[in-house]
Amino acid sequence: MSSKVTALQIDSIETLSEKTQAYFDVCEEKLGLVPNVLKAYSFDETKLRAFTDMYNDLMLADSGLDKLEREMIAVAVSAVNRCFYCLTAHGAAVRELSGDPVLGELMVMNYRVADLSGRQRAMLDFTVKLTERPEEIVESDRQTLRDAGFTDRDIWDIASVAAFFNMTNRVAAASDMRPNDEYHSRAR
Amino acid sequence: MSSKVTALQIDSIETLSEKTQAYFDVCEEKLGLVPNVLKAYSFDETKLRAFTDMYNDLMLADSGLDKLEREMIAVAVSAVNRCFYCLTAHGAAVRELSGDPVLGELMVMNYRVADLSGRQRAMLDFTVKLTERPEEIVESDRQTLRDAGFTDRDIWDIASVAAFFNMTNRVAAASDMRPNDEYHSRAR
Amino acid sequence: MSSKVTALQIDSIETLSEKTQAYFDVCEEKLGLVPNVLKAYSFDETKLRAFTDMYNDLMLADSGLDKLEREMIAVAVSAVNRCFYCLTAHGAAVRELSGDPVLGELMVMNYRVADLSGRQRAMLDFTVKLTERPEEIVESDRQTLRDAGFTDRDIWDIASVAAFFNMTNRVAAASDMRPNDEYHSRAR
Amino acid sequence: MSSKVTALQIDSIETLSEKTQAYFDVCEEKLGLVPNVLKAYSFDETKLRAFTDMYNDLMLADSGLDKLEREMIAVAVSAVNRCFYCLTAHGAAVRELSGDPVLGELMVMNYRVADLSGRQRAMLDFTVKLTERPEEIVESDRQTLRDAGFTDRDIWDIASVAAFFNMTNRVAAASDMRPNDEYHSRAR
Amino acid sequence: MSSKVTALQIDSIETLSEKTQAYFDVCEEKLGLVPNVLKAYSFDETKLRAFTDMYNDLMLADSGLDKLEREMIAVAVSAVNRCFYCLTAHGAAVRELSGDPVLGELMVMNYRVADLSGRQRAMLDFTVKLTERPEEIVESDRQTLRDAGFTDRDIWDIASVAAFFNMTNRVAAASDMRPNDEYHSRAR
Amino acid sequence: MSSKVTALQIDSIETLSEKTQAYFDVCEEKLGLVPNVLKAYSFDETKLRAFTDMYNDLMLADSGLDKLEREMIAVAVSAVNRCFYCLTAHGAAVRELSGDPVLGELMVMNYRVADLSGRQRAMLDFTVKLTERPEEIVESDRQTLRDAGFTDRDIWDIASVAAFFNMTNRVAAASDMRPNDEYHSRAR
Repeated sequence: MSSKVTALQIDSIETLSEKTQAYFDVCEEKLGLVPNVLKAYSFDETKLRAFTDMYNDLMLADSGLDKLEREMIAVAVSAVNRCFYCLTAHGAAVRELSGDPVLGELMVMNYRVADLSGRQRAMLDFTVKLTERPEEIVESDRQTLRDAGFTDRDIWDIASVAAFFNMTNRVAAASDMRPNDEYHSRAR
Repeated sequence: MSSKVTALQIDSIETLSEKTQAYFDVCEEKLGLVPNVLKAYSFDETKLRAFTDMYNDLMLADSGLDKLEREMIAVAVSAVNRCFYCLTAHGAAVRELSGDPVLGELMVMNYRVADLSGRQRAMLDFTVKLTERPEEIVESDRQTLRDAGFTDRDIWDIASVAAFFNMTNRVAAASDMRPNDEYHSRAR
Repeated sequence: MSSKVTALQIDSIETLSEKTQAYFDVCEEKLGLVPNVLKAYSFDETKLRAFTDMYNDLMLADSGLDKLEREMIAVAVSAVNRCFYCLTAHGAAVRELSGDPVLGELMVMNYRVADLSGRQRAMLDFTVKLTERPEEIVESDRQTLRDAGFTDRDIWDIASVAAFFNMTNRVAAASDMRPNDEYHSRAR
Repeated sequence: MSSKVTALQIDSIETLSEKTQAYFDVCEEKLGLVPNVLKAYSFDETKLRAFTDMYNDLMLADSGLDKLEREMIAVAVSAVNRCFYCLTAHGAAVRELSGDPVLGELMVMNYRVADLSGRQRAMLDFTVKLTERPEEIVESDRQTLRDAGFTDRDIWDIASVAAFFNMTNRVAAASDMRPNDEYHSRAR
Repeated sequence: MSSKVTALQIDSIETLSEKTQAYFDVCEEKLGLVPNVLKAYSFDETKLRAFTDMYNDLMLADSGLDKLEREMIAVAVSAVNRCFYCLTAHGAAVRELSGDPVLGELMVMNYRVADLSGRQRAMLDFTVKLTERPEEIVESDRQTLRDAGFTDRDIWDIASVAAFFNMTNRVAAASDMRPNDEYHSRAR
Repeated sequence: MSSKVTALQIDSIETLSEKTQAYFDVCEEKLGLVPNVLKAYSFDETKLRAFTDMYNDLMLADSGLDKLEREMIAVAVSAVNRCFYCLTAHGAAVRELSGDPVLGELMVMNYRVADLSGRQRAMLDFTVKLTERPEEIVESDRQTLRDAGFTDRDIWDIASVAAFFNMTNRVAAASDMRPNDEYHSRAR
């Protein structure tokens, strides 16, 4: 394990379990790298497992939101919180999934000036309000999403993804987590 | 399942799995109730499991932070985000674990005027800055925690708990999640 | 006089005047306590009198707002300002006057998620805007109150009560004023 | 009574009591005008009396703060809240009491760039923090005032004056109260 | 050159060029003073020329906005940024151009309570939003200006003047630039 | 001229002057493109000239700040204001001038987590405070820059560059100015 993934000196376990090593091998094979966030969590396999279980469910399981939309939410949240790790990793994901490098930059820099569908704008407006002023979310905010075509189950998924990145942004900020350099040049 | 735990109409599954039902039975036995957040997640057992796995690790596993300190972090974060669900449920937990009803109120209302140890004040100051302005966390913030006696591993735990409630506060806000009424009168 | 009502060491007068002592006796009889704010002001009877005269007129005199509504305003303002003293004392008053302990908690934690009448929501929305951004109050804000059924005289009363707690919250914050412990457990 | 002192249509009483009329006559004699705020309150003599009693005690009674300092606090608070009424009336008072028209403008525009004594800067820094972020006042803020030479009783007076204008600014904002035109040209 | 125009000690050039001296002579003749901002820039005539070229084009060239409107924008922006220099100099300009001393004060203190035409209110609302939250400007903000009667070319001019004062406010703040005393008493 | 550089429909002049055309030719030759901001201003050659004169002096003339530092300021300011145009164009400039693509991303995403020299951190901390809270700049902020090795003349240049981008960010935001696509892929 690289020792400079975060600013925290936490003793890592000596050998990863077979299961975790296999998971990292799959990452290497599919993504060409093991995301640094996984290395950061690997000092404790229970924590690593809890993180990956939640992440994989939210970002990869069936949902009324497609994978690009979930990545757009990830970046819009991370832009509010100015999270270097998540903007880098998920900005790359938006570029890759959309095939549109400028869309990735727009999500990082200011989603409001992107040329989005009404559905996606409503989704990101909700996401950003939920990030900045969660205490002000009221029924009319949910209704705006329904009016844009989302089901209540979709609203749960929008909220859950936005909320998850409000968590990971803060773990990254608190620990000064650094993204893998490879992300920067991808899909430019 | 009560149908008014959240403002979202999401079809619940017809029968809970035996494993989940057993988990709920334990809650009922130990807490005297099944927390509404679990009912809210129970429309999808994968999501419920991911949530409880992460929650139980963060709040109950071994840590340099005792359980009361973790609950204090939960409430201080939720006070910033004005989360009715989490302030209610975790405010009750602070009252119960501390045996000090006023401490619970102070965490809900304004942790800054509580008469805390230097360690706990440093912990909550970091927590609240991480919640309000994660982009401004720098090395000197981590050093302040070390100077107050926390290890780097403790800092990870402070950050992880604070980050987790930044997530759940937003799931609760987005879905208008309602706490079990029982919490309000406990340990007053 | 208890010496720890505030963090300020101000010499108190040796004997309260008969009139003030009688006033305190009435408090003791009616409320079961002399509110600490009165003790805090009692170092100068002119200041104490000015405070109680204004308080009693605003909170107890005839008005288009009932007493519960005035207490709801008090708590909504104090929640913005995170005033431990006023949230404690007036949160208890909301619980007592409404007979609804949860309503008190909602006012303390986040009035926006309470299930209020349109009239009361308009009243508190105005109150909170006036507290947070008084410079942005314009005619349309007053008109919204009229449309919700308030007279111009009622608007004066809403404004006066909200403004008064913006004052007392700051006297309490500046002096670290502590509420009587009895409030915490009342009407739970 | 002029009918356009505020945007609220509140029936005024037909004749002022002799006592109030005498008070207004003194204003006219001493100030050359009856301040509009008194006219605004005159629809109810109990409210008018409560207001003037508190105002006169705070601004005119003996205090460790001289009258100019109390007016400087009034303007610094009103600048944060952008209160047209109070900036106009008390900006004029700062110009008159100091004989320094530029000082009045500095208080209105940005007290931070004024060339103040350490004592007065500490006083206004406390005042502005108490206005903007009362929830963040802690013991070190009070100690900074003590270190600048203020007694605890002086701190009470600083707080009380700052708090009072946080009240009146909001009554003025809510009612769109208009200052007497005469203030604008005075002591320029 | 007065040496106390700013807090920065920058060596000025020994003799102004004939062209610059002529420009200053015109200022003296027309305005009765050489504005301190010009003296501040005069340590480098290229910078001085760039500043005056842009200023004169924006504030004096033909435009769908009259000169008073441009000065109103200048003051509304400077009020957000609390710029002592620009509020003083351009507040005086509003008083002079309008012949209405109170209008100047309203722009300095709180433009929202001024009695403006719909056109001018829309202009200043856009100006202030552009100053406070430029990232939130979207097409509907431009459309609101069009609906108030502005052409797209007018919108460019509103934006350019507002943007320019967001620049000069910051040069003044960073250097502690002081306005000529003469402005304070003009057109009162 | 491309007609979609901004959202504003402003008639462009029929033929550019020879001087302007020559300037654009130099841009094309040196940069491989004519920056869209120049096209946006080209409807009025006086405005275009004023803009380029100021820009070229600030960014290219002799200064105690090297060109990379001036571009870092440009991006740090634009990150606060979330200006899509300037983040894109000047983010590319940071990547090119530094030869460090990650540095460009750090300036866009969060300069606070970049590994900077004390000098450059002081420079950007001042820049960002001047952008976010210009009214709070006081002498100690200037002194911090001097202590980091800057002369008063350097402080003028830091302030002028930061102030300039606070202007251009707002012109870009108000007009929805779009950067040339070429910037996105440069120096990745």
